[in-house]
Amino acid sequence: MAEDKLFEKKISRRQMLKLTGAGAAGAAIGVSGLGGLLNVFGMTAEDDNPESKNKVNFYGTHQSGIITPVQTHIYFASLEVLVKSQAELKELLQQWTPMAVRLMNGEPIGEVSSNGFIPAKDTGEAGGLDASGLTLTFGVGPSLFDKNELGLSSKRPAELKDLPHFPKDQLDPAYTGGDIAIQACAEDPQVAFHAVRNLIRAASGKVRLKWSQAGFNSFPEKNKKRETPRNLFAFKDGTSGPDAASKKAMNDVVWVDKGWLAGGSYMAVRRIQMHLETWDRTALSEQEATFGRHRETGAPLSLKNELDEVPLDQKDASGEPVIPVDSHVRLAKEAKAQIHRRSFSYSSGTMDATGAYDAGLLFISYQKDPQQFIAIQKSFGRADKLNEYITHRGSALFACFPGVQKGSYIGESLFKTL
Amino acid sequence: MAEDKLFEKKISRRQMLKLTGAGAAGAAIGVSGLGGLLNVFGMTAEDDNPESKNKVNFYGTHQSGIITPVQTHIYFASLEVLVKSQAELKELLQQWTPMAVRLMNGEPIGEVSSNGFIPAKDTGEAGGLDASGLTLTFGVGPSLFDKNELGLSSKRPAELKDLPHFPKDQLDPAYTGGDIAIQACAEDPQVAFHAVRNLIRAASGKVRLKWSQAGFNSFPEKNKKRETPRNLFAFKDGTSGPDAASKKAMNDVVWVDKGWLAGGSYMAVRRIQMHLETWDRTALSEQEATFGRHRETGAPLSLKNELDEVPLDQKDASGEPVIPVDSHVRLAKEAKAQIHRRSFSYSSGTMDATGAYDAGLLFISYQKDPQQFIAIQKSFGRADKLNEYITHRGSALFACFPGVQKGSYIGESLFKTL
Repeated sequence: MAEDKLFEKKISRRQMLKLTGAGAAGAAIGVSGLGGLLNVFGMTAEDDNPESKNKVNFYGTHQSGIITPVQTHIYFASLEVLVKSQAELKELLQQWTPMAVRLMNGEPIGEVSSNGFIPAKDTGEAGGLDASGLTLTFGVGPSLFDKNELGLSSKRPAELKDLPHFPKDQLDPAYTGGDIAIQACAEDPQVAFHAVRNLIRAASGKVRLKWSQAGFNSFPEKNKKRETPRNLFAFKDGTSGPDAASKKAMNDVVWVDKGWLAGGSYMAVRRIQMHLETWDRTALSEQEATFGRHRETGAPLSLKNELDEVPLDQKDASGEPVIPVDSHVRLAKEAKAQIHRRSFSYSSGTMDATGAYDAGLLFISYQKDPQQFIAIQKSFGRADKLNEYITHRGSALFACFPGVQKGSYIGESLFKTL
Repeated sequence: MAEDKLFEKKISRRQMLKLTGAGAAGAAIGVSGLGGLLNVFGMTAEDDNPESKNKVNFYGTHQSGIITPVQTHIYFASLEVLVKSQAELKELLQQWTPMAVRLMNGEPIGEVSSNGFIPAKDTGEAGGLDASGLTLTFGVGPSLFDKNELGLSSKRPAELKDLPHFPKDQLDPAYTGGDIAIQACAEDPQVAFHAVRNLIRAASGKVRLKWSQAGFNSFPEKNKKRETPRNLFAFKDGTSGPDAASKKAMNDVVWVDKGWLAGGSYMAVRRIQMHLETWDRTALSEQEATFGRHRETGAPLSLKNELDEVPLDQKDASGEPVIPVDSHVRLAKEAKAQIHRRSFSYSSGTMDATGAYDAGLLFISYQKDPQQFIAIQKSFGRADKLNEYITHRGSALFACFPGVQKGSYIGESLFKTL
């Protein structure tokens, strides 16, 4: 602990010297005003790095990574909080704020080339890589509010509680819950991992990694534009969601509009194993009936285009609904609820000695109320034909903070008396 | 089984009709000469698809994926063979050959849009993605030659045996060995996985997935050229290997020059856990002394450029070698052996309840004789300072076949009487 303090002090000094050398503006921030917070790590919280390539802005009304177009890679981390007071938790989020800014700028969180006899400030593996569209999204889970020592129970939104048990759930505690979530998404897997690793490392003794999952999206391109990625069942699923470019739609579906979470959103996370072997033995017509969509185009059955409206009322020549009653898309639609989906595939390793793939979907959705997700999941219930081919193995719900304004810090509204 | 046959027959018919429709050349191949083999799946083995983007050629003196510049993603699969005769094994490799050609062309292995009441030929999740630089590399492990029913024991090269136990090895059977390896590398993770999945699916009942590992490389770019990727310790390791563009160097280091394996190579695979938490608490100077290189530039200690020759004999002012006696690069050099490295990082999930990252290196190297790899590993022995930060958890050795000529098939030389 004493050593830790010494270490902080040394770094601050070195960084300050560097800032002084680098320019008066930097030095001014370093020694005055705004300061203590932003300079915890000898950093400024500047996000206007003109040299930063492929950068997403950290500051804004909402956090990045929620309605930001989905990237090719994710490293999702669920953390357990070890700090024992609200003040320490607040300090942690304050400490993370300028780091998140730098990470999203594609900058190291501190000097990388010191030859001093101390650990380098940044773990360095993203050296030479650009910002790569990194987004960082922070949220808190229900369990955080159960910790008496943090004194947050009165701040717990009524909506923030563990998701109910759904039919066919087979949850593994190793992939369930968590006090804090960090969703790091980027166009590069090393950039996403580097961000989480450095945030956790800087919070050594304050948080512990509970579970994590990497994932990817592969985008077909047409005219240099990204099309909907296919999941590992080869389907373009969940494409009839609300328009993320529409402010109204996002206000209706995604953004919480009351309390300390106003401007934030609820993130549902499900680690869904996909039984590829069973799926791969199934006739294409059966697969298409399962989703209610054509595999090649992603169009609803009987139609041509991915975004065509799902013809729930249409019948075929024999009087049967063209979108089967137990199809995934029909049950999703019949829930009459909307969510904003932001999922990734995963595949590495085997499940067990049978050689089954450890592969599936890291399903992530954002909604202003968890009930939206729950309604859809309940509509699937036991009826969903897709149940034959998937098993939900992990689950978590987080309240993702509103966006951060310059001069503020991640999650500030949680600590303000409202 | 009977159903399977029927299925084959149906597909062949459908494909034949399609070929006939598409053009006489295709049809000619379908019904005559070259034939039976290449048409097992109603495919031609043509690799000259002018529409194929980002394609690596399948045919050649050597297999792809050995001296092909390393890609951003890998899906490595180690398989157990279930077939009970040499003829069946040969058939399997014959069956895989035209599939591999199509996969590397970025084509589905068969029709994708059938509405027939049969499983689609291709699993489809690479639909719309291009060839993405896919390479497929096939090899056979020592255990294959132990299977009496395959009658291959006389063909076993003396060099092909399990790697010896090295100090600090803690091998997990779940990541060790295998009868057949498929190394699928591409610029896209879904393309790499899709290839392995479809090869295994087509070989249902003939092979079983024993273990697999996905991985990635993230390349810093300078002037639009890729630089050496950093491992998860942030170092540019193993960069002083032989020049893959030099035919002589590759003949000296990589390509076997005798027996049925002539033109092939031995692939050593090691799943190496990297203890990131311990590493991240270590002073940068200590880390640099561990590798014998500067972290930022990758240059040998005391020098400026990554590719500068390692100054093994140079001493510092106090008479100590500037490249420490227990450094990774010195011990590698002192082995006086060369290997061609082709490694990938991996990181997803946690090892255990302590929250340690399940992260590390999927080390892969090619050499004309496994002794080259063994010599280096023995030189590391107990001395290598890097041992404090890594644990070898998986291990396998494969004899990778020579390249395939048009009209031939993967591994043909193994079945020829020499």
